[in-house]
Order: sequence, then C-alpha cells, then structure tokens
Amino acid sequence: MNSGEKEPKPRVAVTMGDPRGIGPEIVAQAFARLGPHDFCTPLILGDVEVLSRTVQRMNLRLRVAEVDEEGLRENSVGVLPVLPVSHLSPGKGAGEIPAGESSRASFAYVEWAGRMAIEGKVQAVVTAPVSKEAIHGTGIPFRGHTEYLAEISGTRDFVMMLAGERLKVALVTTHVPLETVARLLTDEKILSVIEITYRGLEEYFELRPPRLAVAALNPHAGEGGLFGNEEAIISRAVQQARDRGLSVSGPLPADTLFHRVQLGDFDAVVCMYHDQGLIPLKLLHFDTAVNVTLGLPFIRTSVDHGVAYDIAGKGLASSRSLEEAIRLGARMAARKKDSLGRR
Amino acid sequence: MNSGEKEPKPRVAVTMGDPRGIGPEIVAQAFARLGPHDFCTPLILGDVEVLSRTVQRMNLRLRVAEVDEEGLRENSVGVLPVLPVSHLSPGKGAGEIPAGESSRASFAYVEWAGRMAIEGKVQAVVTAPVSKEAIHGTGIPFRGHTEYLAEISGTRDFVMMLAGERLKVALVTTHVPLETVARLLTDEKILSVIEITYRGLEEYFELRPPRLAVAALNPHAGEGGLFGNEEAIISRAVQQARDRGLSVSGPLPADTLFHRVQLGDFDAVVCMYHDQGLIPLKLLHFDTAVNVTLGLPFIRTSVDHGVAYDIAGKGLASSRSLEEAIRLGARMAARKKDSLGRR
Repeated sequence: MNSGEKEPKPRVAVTMGDPRGIGPEIVAQAFARLGPHDFCTPLILGDVEVLSRTVQRMNLRLRVAEVDEEGLRENSVGVLPVLPVSHLSPGKGAGEIPAGESSRASFAYVEWAGRMAIEGKVQAVVTAPVSKEAIHGTGIPFRGHTEYLAEISGTRDFVMMLAGERLKVALVTTHVPLETVARLLTDEKILSVIEITYRGLEEYFELRPPRLAVAALNPHAGEGGLFGNEEAIISRAVQQARDRGLSVSGPLPADTLFHRVQLGDFDAVVCMYHDQGLIPLKLLHFDTAVNVTLGLPFIRTSVDHGVAYDIAGKGLASSRSLEEAIRLGARMAARKKDSLGRR
Repeated sequence: MNSGEKEPKPRVAVTMGDPRGIGPEIVAQAFARLGPHDFCTPLILGDVEVLSRTVQRMNLRLRVAEVDEEGLRENSVGVLPVLPVSHLSPGKGAGEIPAGESSRASFAYVEWAGRMAIEGKVQAVVTAPVSKEAIHGTGIPFRGHTEYLAEISGTRDFVMMLAGERLKVALVTTHVPLETVARLLTDEKILSVIEITYRGLEEYFELRPPRLAVAALNPHAGEGGLFGNEEAIISRAVQQARDRGLSVSGPLPADTLFHRVQLGDFDAVVCMYHDQGLIPLKLLHFDTAVNVTLGLPFIRTSVDHGVAYDIAGKGLASSRSLEEAIRLGARMAARKKDSLGRR
C-alpha cells in the first residue's frame, strides 16, 4: 500500500442489542462519546424509533439518520446512522415492547450484520448484548453470537477471546455446563485454540512473538494426576504447538497463573472454560474488556457484558466496553488491510 | 472474663512443612520478622537440624531451641522453639534429603500438631506447605491438610476458607477433579458450607452480620437452565439458609461477582470449586491470604501456597502468607476464648 494514498476507513457494522436491555443506550452513548466516524465508517443495525427515543431521553447531541446499506459512506460526526432492521411498537416506551418481539429483533440485527460481513459490505461486526435465554425462548436455537456467526460463515475453528489492556483470555469451551467441560477437551481442539489465538495476537495485536500461557483444568494442575488427568491432554496439545514453532507455556495451575499475568509474565492465556477466563478478566478489566472472535472470515468484536435488564433505560450503564469494542474492531480491520497490503 | 486478669496467650503449633520445599525458610523468616511470642506462645513441629542450617544460611538472628510439649511456655523472643519430630540426615544439605524421608517427615509434623490440638495442648495449628503428591507417593493416603485434620478429629462438616483482607472465599468442593464438581453438589453440603462460613465470619472475623454471597456453578449462572441446572440446587440451599435467618445472596454469576466484592458489596463468597475461589483470591491477595479451616474442634490456619520446590533454599520465598497465618490463628484463638468467656 502506498502510504501517500488515502486509504478508505474500515466499514464497521454495530448491532443495537436487545431493545429491552442496555443496548440502545450504550450504542447511543458510545457514538456520542467516541465519535467513531473519525476512524471508521459505522452503521447501526437497529431500530430508528427506539434509538430516537433513547437519544432524546439521554439528552445526547446526536441526530438519528435512517440509512441503507449503500448509504454507509455518507454519514458523518454527530449522526447516528441507523439501518432500520426492526420497527418496534412506535410510540411505546422501551419497557412496553413485548419480550418476544424485542428478542426476535435483537436476533435480526445480528443476522443482518453477519450477512453484510460475509458479503464484504463491512469489514467488522461489533455486537451489543442480547439475551441468549430470551432469543431461545422465541424458538430460535441461538447459543450465542460467536457460535451463530461461525455457523453462518461456515467456520469450523474459531476462538472466543476476551481482550483487556493487560490480560487477554481465549476460551477452549464457552457457553456449556461446567460438568461437560472435561469431556469436551481434546488435543485437536486445544491445539486449534492455541494456534488461532497465537496468530491473532500476532496479526491483530502486533505481539510478535506473543507470550501465551495455557491454563490447567484441575486444581493445582491435577497435582500429578491426583485430581484429574486432563492435564495430560493439555500437555500434548502444548507440545504439538511447540512442534509447530509456537512458543507456548503450560499447562499451568490456574490459581497462580493470572497473578503472573498481572506481573507481566504473559500477554494472553488459553483457558479451558468460561469462568476460568472471565473471573480474572473482569477483576482486571471490568468495563474495558472486549470480546473478540478470532478465526471468522471477518472481524468481530463485542461488549463483554450482558443485557442488564435490571438497569436498562436508567442511564446507569457504562458504554466503555462498547466504545473499546468499536475502537478495537476498527483497529483490527485496519491492521488486517495493512497486512494484506504488505503481501 | 475479667479484663483486669492476665489472660494466658494462645498456644499455637506451627508445622515446618516439607523440608525440601520452602517450609523451613518461611518458618524461620516468619519468626524473625513477626516476633510471634508477643501475641502467642508458639511451638514448631519440625526438625532441629534442618532449621538450624536454615537459620545459619539465611543469617537470621534466631536461636534454635529444642523443646518438648511441656516446654511450650518457656520460649521467648529470638528463639525458634522446635519440638524435634524428625531427625533428617544430619550434615546433609536440604537438597540431599531423600524425597521419601522428607515427605514422611512433613506428614509426621501435621500428625503431631493435630494430636496436640485434639488433646487441647494447643489452641491453634498453623501449617506450612507439604506436597500431597509426594506424601501420597510414600503410600500414605493423604488428600490434604484440611481433609486429614477433619478425619482425625472426627469432624464431618468443615469448610476450607481462604481469607484475605477484602475477599474471603469458602469452598464447597476442594481438591477434586473439576469434572466431578457438579455431581458433588447437594443442598445439604452447600447449606452446611454457608452456615459454617456465616458463623465463622461472625465469631472469628467479627463481621456481624457478614455479607455473604454464593457463586453459581455454570457460566452466566446457567442462563436460566441453558447451560446446566445446578443453580437450582444452589438456590434451594440459599433459600434454606435464609429460612434459618442467615442473610445470604445468590447464586450469582461468578464472573461478575468478584468484581462486586472488589467494590465492597460482599465480605465473603461461598464458591463451588477450588479455582473459582482461588483465581480471584490470588489476584486480590497474592501473598497475604491465609487458608482457614472452619468447623474443626480447634483453630487451624495455613499458608495459601505450595512447597515451591523450584525456589526452595534460594531465599526467594515470601513468608508473608505464613506470618498472616500465624497472626490470624492466634487472633482467632483469642476471639474464641473471648466468646467462651462471654457465655
């Protein structure tokens, strides 16, 4: 790429999230605080009526503009560019939207964003929170954004990573009962997560080489087989990764590992289950961590929190995580272009 | 108790830990730094030769004195009062003690300390680290200090709690494979841990009432049954605790719960498995947390770390956790006396 040439900004689709949750208010607030038009061309997949009411209620200096897929480039600072995927109960307050309608709409935003990304109309998808439980309740077999986007893009191997400034965690298993974790661990699966994470840290986070650790599953890493044997599986995967030239440490006892990250020993940790990664992540980076999906044919980032129905509409929700997700999604898209340009 | 009366100091037994680990050096250093004679009458169950060499090598201003069980009260500041349970290879360096001999000795210190506590000769037992794996390797079916002390004292219901200044975690399951955790959870077991922890926080930590939370097992607390159903068991136990007048919150999703503790919402968390509690504990209180066993007929505290063979004998180990364990064990013993005196 010629550095004198003006490179078009990455196009980023942002979903509005569950209308009954904190999605609309954090999307509006993130746009007001962040001014994402400076570093990307954003588009919101959502609901014009819901966002207009939100902007008004929060007294934000934003104009909601209805746009279509082609209208992407015409929007500018101070504008909330919304592609109207849903038309929810005009005139009703946020709390009055029926749950089913709201949940189906929240799914439709993701569906639309995913399709645009697959068609190359946007380079990155940034998602606001939905309720898996509520979507499930409408009869849509939805296990999570990450799993859904992988499925529609025909992606077999992908990784859910949560990225904070100091700690990044990649998960081998995600939204499954804790009881099933041990039997879901295989050499192949763990090796795949190690590789995708390692390459992602190189490509999108410019960590060359990344300092990557792999957590053990059992207390004290099984203490030599006394409490579980899955560490043998993890060890084999780590060895296979090393054989492929990746410098990886592990399996290391999870209880002390994150303290070592805190001291600066590692950049990222491959974790065997959701809470193993999320507990330390939320302690170290409560409202600034971003959920990143690695391995998809497009870039996808997300907030790392839920719909928070209990505080929705009260102006209490922090938009920090969404701001970081938009910023990181755009930066990853720019780095990907750079690395394509270098080839 | 008459406040003008001179109350004898609590008698505290300290085990030396695995002679090949960091036990001897942290015991010696803790005594040098802490001067525990000021607030308790301590006794070390260990090895005179090993501790003498350690004191010499570390250049500490301590005199090792061989004492017997009766000699407990005669020791004073600047003295390391050792009851010689083992006589390990005199003249040999720490690294030259055979593993089997060392492991058997480390178990004998615990055995002796437990017996003295049961006989009422000491009010508290403080344990330095041993290797469960190494003791197991000698043919002794040892699953951990806590489990062992419960067994010899005929204690059915006990709780392993890790206590830091801000966060205290009580574990429903401890040193078991992660895979088995879900099926070990019962209403009775969880309720028992809630009750023992609640009473312990009142009696020994003077939290009245304690603000106690109970963690969920599955990611997002199972998200309404989508990923696991153990939250129903935990909910029942929480309800039963409330029926008995204990103010307890839960089950709460583990990933955000510890952040709430960080903000000051709760004093302590009942955790379903080892790493659920230990990951956040070690992030918040790396070398100052103390392992406390609640429910035994005597007080027992311990360091919250392992033998650290890799740094043993190098003067690198921190004695902070052991110092806190001795201090807390003595304080708990004093509070127990106080509350007995009040009855």
